[in-house]
Amino acid sequence: MTTTATTLKGQPLDRAAFDSMMRRRMFYTPSFEIYGGVSGLYDYGPPGTSLQSNLLDIWRKHFVLEEDMLEVDCSVLTPHEVFKTSGHVDRFADWMCKDPKFGDILRADHFVEDVLEARLKGDKEARGQTVEEKKKDAKREKKKSKDQQEAVKLDDAVVKEYEEILAKIDNYNGEELGELIKKYDLRVPKSGLQPTPPVAFNLMFQTSIGPSSNLPGYLRPETAQGQFLNFAKLLEFNQGAMPFASASIGKSYRNEISPRAGLLRVREFLMAEIEHFVDPEGGKKHSRFYEVEDIELDLLHRDTQLSGKTTVQKMTIGKAVKDGVVDNETLGYFLARISLFMQKIGIDMSKLRFRQHMANEMAHYACDCWDAELLTSSGWVECVGCADRSAYDLTVHSKHTGKPLLVRQRLEEPRIVQEWDVVIKKKKFGPAFKKDAKAIEAVILATTQEQREKLAKEIEETGKAAIDVPELGKVDVGKDLLAVEYKSRTENVRDYTPNVIEPSFGIGRILFALCEHNYWTRASEGGDEARSVLSFPPATAPTKVLIVPLSSNDKFRPYITKLSQKLRSAKISARVDDSSATIGKRYSRNDELGTPMGITIDFQTVEDGTITLRDRDSTKQVRAEEEKIIAAVRDIVNGDKTWQDIEKELPIFEGQELASR
Amino acid sequence: MTTTATTLKGQPLDRAAFDSMMRRRMFYTPSFEIYGGVSGLYDYGPPGTSLQSNLLDIWRKHFVLEEDMLEVDCSVLTPHEVFKTSGHVDRFADWMCKDPKFGDILRADHFVEDVLEARLKGDKEARGQTVEEKKKDAKREKKKSKDQQEAVKLDDAVVKEYEEILAKIDNYNGEELGELIKKYDLRVPKSGLQPTPPVAFNLMFQTSIGPSSNLPGYLRPETAQGQFLNFAKLLEFNQGAMPFASASIGKSYRNEISPRAGLLRVREFLMAEIEHFVDPEGGKKHSRFYEVEDIELDLLHRDTQLSGKTTVQKMTIGKAVKDGVVDNETLGYFLARISLFMQKIGIDMSKLRFRQHMANEMAHYACDCWDAELLTSSGWVECVGCADRSAYDLTVHSKHTGKPLLVRQRLEEPRIVQEWDVVIKKKKFGPAFKKDAKAIEAVILATTQEQREKLAKEIEETGKAAIDVPELGKVDVGKDLLAVEYKSRTENVRDYTPNVIEPSFGIGRILFALCEHNYWTRASEGGDEARSVLSFPPATAPTKVLIVPLSSNDKFRPYITKLSQKLRSAKISARVDDSSATIGKRYSRNDELGTPMGITIDFQTVEDGTITLRDRDSTKQVRAEEEKIIAAVRDIVNGDKTWQDIEKELPIFEGQELASR
Repeated sequence: MTTTATTLKGQPLDRAAFDSMMRRRMFYTPSFEIYGGVSGLYDYGPPGTSLQSNLLDIWRKHFVLEEDMLEVDCSVLTPHEVFKTSGHVDRFADWMCKDPKFGDILRADHFVEDVLEARLKGDKEARGQTVEEKKKDAKREKKKSKDQQEAVKLDDAVVKEYEEILAKIDNYNGEELGELIKKYDLRVPKSGLQPTPPVAFNLMFQTSIGPSSNLPGYLRPETAQGQFLNFAKLLEFNQGAMPFASASIGKSYRNEISPRAGLLRVREFLMAEIEHFVDPEGGKKHSRFYEVEDIELDLLHRDTQLSGKTTVQKMTIGKAVKDGVVDNETLGYFLARISLFMQKIGIDMSKLRFRQHMANEMAHYACDCWDAELLTSSGWVECVGCADRSAYDLTVHSKHTGKPLLVRQRLEEPRIVQEWDVVIKKKKFGPAFKKDAKAIEAVILATTQEQREKLAKEIEETGKAAIDVPELGKVDVGKDLLAVEYKSRTENVRDYTPNVIEPSFGIGRILFALCEHNYWTRASEGGDEARSVLSFPPATAPTKVLIVPLSSNDKFRPYITKLSQKLRSAKISARVDDSSATIGKRYSRNDELGTPMGITIDFQTVEDGTITLRDRDSTKQVRAEEEKIIAAVRDIVNGDKTWQDIEKELPIFEGQELASR
Repeated sequence: MTTTATTLKGQPLDRAAFDSMMRRRMFYTPSFEIYGGVSGLYDYGPPGTSLQSNLLDIWRKHFVLEEDMLEVDCSVLTPHEVFKTSGHVDRFADWMCKDPKFGDILRADHFVEDVLEARLKGDKEARGQTVEEKKKDAKREKKKSKDQQEAVKLDDAVVKEYEEILAKIDNYNGEELGELIKKYDLRVPKSGLQPTPPVAFNLMFQTSIGPSSNLPGYLRPETAQGQFLNFAKLLEFNQGAMPFASASIGKSYRNEISPRAGLLRVREFLMAEIEHFVDPEGGKKHSRFYEVEDIELDLLHRDTQLSGKTTVQKMTIGKAVKDGVVDNETLGYFLARISLFMQKIGIDMSKLRFRQHMANEMAHYACDCWDAELLTSSGWVECVGCADRSAYDLTVHSKHTGKPLLVRQRLEEPRIVQEWDVVIKKKKFGPAFKKDAKAIEAVILATTQEQREKLAKEIEETGKAAIDVPELGKVDVGKDLLAVEYKSRTENVRDYTPNVIEPSFGIGRILFALCEHNYWTRASEGGDEARSVLSFPPATAPTKVLIVPLSSNDKFRPYITKLSQKLRSAKISARVDDSSATIGKRYSRNDELGTPMGITIDFQTVEDGTITLRDRDSTKQVRAEEEKIIAAVRDIVNGDKTWQDIEKELPIFEGQELASR
């Protein structure tokens, strides 16, 4: 499949060739493949695991250490009650429909999107236009045969309607998707029938905790809740200081309806999430915003999408916040920091944009959300969500458990609060109502300010208040038992529930996009199409150096051992390839693994102790004494020098792959 | 609860005080505590998370990088079929019984153990002996009230019986536990009744994968299976070279019947597992065994335990392998490497022993197993299992899937194999049996060497062979259709299924034991009982340096910022504590967090640029210019120098906590 996705060198990216290389080199591989595999589940092989752990290491330094975030590691297994309260049990769902004939289960939004896109493609063919696969916003691949559509010309108005639907496909709820299916008579290609109306399918995996099966639980679909539930302890750990952020790296689980896009839509995935707790008053400023305000981002505004377009605006985050495009400094700060992170790990910055969520698309807890999207062969893919969850989560958990999840702020200037206060005359109240006294009192104390104002009026007018008590009905409480007064009091502290800004990273998606962005073949520089390269930056690359003895000659062995040890004590990850393949083949294999440097040990090494250093991207080599080469490697890995610097400092080595003498 | 467990300084360890400190400092905390918690689930707070990630970092360097292991990251969600094949569906269970009156669920072995121990305690009281809580092998705490037992004197013979049962408690199966309950009339204290007979309770968490609920799955109880299923790909990645090891760090899940020992028995836990694949021929030698053969270990042999004792033998691993105490070099190599790892992270080596599993105790896949056990306030606790899983897993998966999980070894000298071979005369065989031909042929081809020898004899004697074909019964095959001959052939390759040696680390248990082993209070050195210290080695400590300004005076701010940046660029993790508490209180807090060094910035810093460095363990301080202090910190963190070295090099600082001038 050729898409408009491109390689690092701007050539069209051959997705099939890319996939095949990634699997051959064991970056990732379907889980349980000898058992036929399970869709949406992948294992990472050695280079994938190493790449992942380098990404996490950079992430930790860039976010957690840089800002003294409080990293925690919380349970994946979570009891029902927590997700019931957080709203996930009721609302964390996708819309699912069924082929009425064959029973195949479809994700409703993907189905609508697929059929409309197929029709648009058929229309283009009918109009005799070349059909170029569109850069679409889909996050998954399609089964190719399904999308076959006859070339039928559509009315211009219909084409426009379809395009507008597609631009805001994420904005429809289940009912609206059902209406689209009926209105446009969308049919499942396999059966030729309209699917059943969309129903909600909860995406959480369910299980049962303990031996007696009476504690239902879920695998968490995000790491966030564990951080929220620990808020009070974290605030105490932080010695009460605000604002602060917690962070967590861990697996989450979503029972996707029909995952089929490799690493881009999986059922088990690694997340890295930050919960930044901030005072909602004062505009959610950020003390380090000035450090990032000049950074330019590609922004795709909500309104642009609703008007059926996908044009991005390039602007500095400073201007975006000033103009209200991005709501506040803290949200803006993190968008800029995300952009810097992407740059650091080696993302092609022309393939990054920030897209704002439309109203219906947002998760139930969010009040604003921007996704960092990366362009891949499957279109633009959400890789980081940056949501303003407001005070939603802390409020619902605190309300449900009765435990305060608040910040108590000492006010510099005390403030005067005027409000309605209830006074129960206990001495008479108890004897008057006996066993019902407690229940009646609870209802009175739970009244709102508005209700109290009415009660005060009622008592003034009638001498009593009629209180509606569950299971007792209306109960009259006389003014000798209850007073409701408008009072003023002085507050020295202010209690508030912090708002949460949440940058949430899908590590697997970033890893996949990073591989595509750094992939190219030597053909683009006049070489062999079959020779692929992954040009990861040194900091990200799974292995930094390959050590290649010219042959399996025993003379080379002590040099290999010594060099390995020296690299290890310099904390540079290296691997030896002393297999019997030619040096050229070994370097090729290595280019596919993304190893930036190679060191050859040959007969000249035995004579004069010099070794060669090869640059993966240019395939050029220099030759020098071991110490100089190790210093060069260290400088490149630490980012202090580039290959161009090294080429100027050390003698170029022109010798080809030497035959053994 | 005071046990015979001791602090780092040899004082009795006050478990309640220790637990309270660990929670107060947020090393770990019950998950979902504001919801009442769920037993067996814990969250790690910032110091726990950092400690955990330091342990993993050291583990990775000590095992994975040191031996070029292939690290992978596999799915936790696993389909039913995989664990059915591996034997976990049928056999990964504990024995569970119920209180017939109240319905409380008990783990059968723990129940038997608890009642017998309570009776022995009662016996001692009746004999007027002081009851000292025994260093027991239990892996959990007990509900105290349950163990109340009247002081009843037992016969000497009964005491001996009970003690022998307890020494081999891990060796009983469910039926045997049921017999013990009947024989000794063991009753649940709460109801005064014998519990129901033990039944197997599978420890895997079950869930269902995909929207149609037709793919049952489990959360993995170990990371191993993912590594086995990828064996063929890993061998290819390793370019066919043997032996090699894969490794994996990740969470596993076990639905414990009644977890109640803090971090020691949990339902969700982090494992670090190595699967070392080795040729079963030639005695499972290890090429680096010579490096470790002089290391001495405390070994507790299977036979010692079966004789009712728990005495360890101290011997070098070289001798243990030579004498057959430990089965082979590879197993021995890993036991020694585990011991070195424990030393590196800061385990008290007098609290480490290696215990061999008894026959009934071993997991269904193991043919030999040694546990590295650490002594804690809950007794000796298994922290690393080191099992020889033989060829079990690769064989069952290969057999079930039909996919080869083998090593193909090119033989240096071809070998001649003599064996019985069947030759089916296809031209006549097909027409003779028509539609049944295939089934009959399959049975013939599936015969073993022994069966073929018999068939040859039968044909020689009777001119035909009677073949037993399912659904057809006996079928006579004449000698014109079938020949069975003893032939010799030359083999140039040898196919074999490797054996697996598996060191499997429970990171949470190690972390817990490490905290206990490094815990002490200043009381043991004449100081305050309430001042606790965690003396982690610098490499393991969650944070390396605390930066403490004397007060919140603005003059200190630029020094804090500069110092933080310098430490960060030296890759040393530091934290600032500029809270309003006294310096003494801030250092105390820090001692409890296990931070080895503290740097004070005071008014002298503003005058002459010098800062003080404080040693957590001795509380002594030195004072010097910033650069010298940073160098000292780096040397201590890298393990190049100790505090004693620094004290000799830099001027001692005697000044007490300075009042602000």
